[in-house]
Amino acid sequence: MYELFAFATPNSIKPAILLEELALPWQLRGINIRQGEQNQDAFLALNPNGKVPVLHDPDNEMVLRESAAILVYLAEKHANLLPSGGKPRARVFEQLFFHASAVSPAFGQAGFFTRPAHEPQPLAQARFNQEAIRVTRLLERQLAATRWVAGDEYTIADIAHYGWMWRRQFAGISLEEMPHLKHWFETLSARPAVVRAVAKLNALTEN
Amino acid sequence: MYELFAFATPNSIKPAILLEELALPWQLRGINIRQGEQNQDAFLALNPNGKVPVLHDPDNEMVLRESAAILVYLAEKHANLLPSGGKPRARVFEQLFFHASAVSPAFGQAGFFTRPAHEPQPLAQARFNQEAIRVTRLLERQLAATRWVAGDEYTIADIAHYGWMWRRQFAGISLEEMPHLKHWFETLSARPAVVRAVAKLNALTEN
Repeated sequence: MYELFAFATPNSIKPAILLEELALPWQLRGINIRQGEQNQDAFLALNPNGKVPVLHDPDNEMVLRESAAILVYLAEKHANLLPSGGKPRARVFEQLFFHASAVSPAFGQAGFFTRPAHEPQPLAQARFNQEAIRVTRLLERQLAATRWVAGDEYTIADIAHYGWMWRRQFAGISLEEMPHLKHWFETLSARPAVVRAVAKLNALTEN
Repeated sequence: MYELFAFATPNSIKPAILLEELALPWQLRGINIRQGEQNQDAFLALNPNGKVPVLHDPDNEMVLRESAAILVYLAEKHANLLPSGGKPRARVFEQLFFHASAVSPAFGQAGFFTRPAHEPQPLAQARFNQEAIRVTRLLERQLAATRWVAGDEYTIADIAHYGWMWRRQFAGISLEEMPHLKHWFETLSARPAVVRAVAKLNALTEN
């Protein structure tokens, strides 16, 4: 059975949603990052980078890090939610890397520098707030043109973008003026697999 | 013929190297980001995100953005430098997303906040400098264990990491205390395809 080492974070929710979408049996292993468990030796042995999520696949005796790499691995292994070729496939990777290199760092840093720090960093705060808004507008523009982020089909690229949109409050982002993105987010949030994944990860914060 | 819209940047060098490794005919279209050409309408029509590189593939009438998505697309289309399955393939994606989500933002922000700004941002500067060093050490550790970043084979993951290692001075990173990473960088730098790609992109800065 797959094991997912995770917490209620933007990156952890991605493979949790995919495992539920694929209706695979999996075991959630909570890593409480509020208590620093990701920096303890037991977890660092799984991921020297000290980041959740991590997937353990007993079939291949593999420990895999990086949430989007886990999405690609599971989608290919189970032949679902990733088109097999051509433009539709290329668009999924385009969005996966746009998320990893632009959306995710912008949202993470916007949230970090907005929190009370030792001393104000106005340039950094403005830089990341503006970047978080800019990339969100790019997503809104994409979803005004296509139903899902990579085209006509629901794919792992939607699951990737869901992570930070789910936790957008941390970055101070609102969808009120982003009607297409808001509709996309609500559509995704209502999927049974997403409801189940969110409930499982949120339960980790209740202890 | 492939067209690559690019400049002498860490992200632009990646697809240039791969096109040379695959011995494909391609045309370089210089986008001078020092003169802001990436923000002009002609380029924004290709990439609303305003970032180089962009690949045009006339075969599929496709315009593709995101350097790592271009690497995956070309490697799959020409069946080279990306293992076809199992652990070796998963490790490539693990490194591609580690590069996109951790190395690239850390190096980019470390460089930005080190440059003279309107007012000092000591917390931001320390944060990104430390992160750039931390992720470089993770790469050094990986290359102490395996010959290439994703295992025994040279893959597109090595090409991805080469980009920022080539421009590491911008981020204030030195390889002097990273013997395995230094050896890997020198090995890559000596490959004829890398020499050709670097020369082509560097020529764009001479005008």
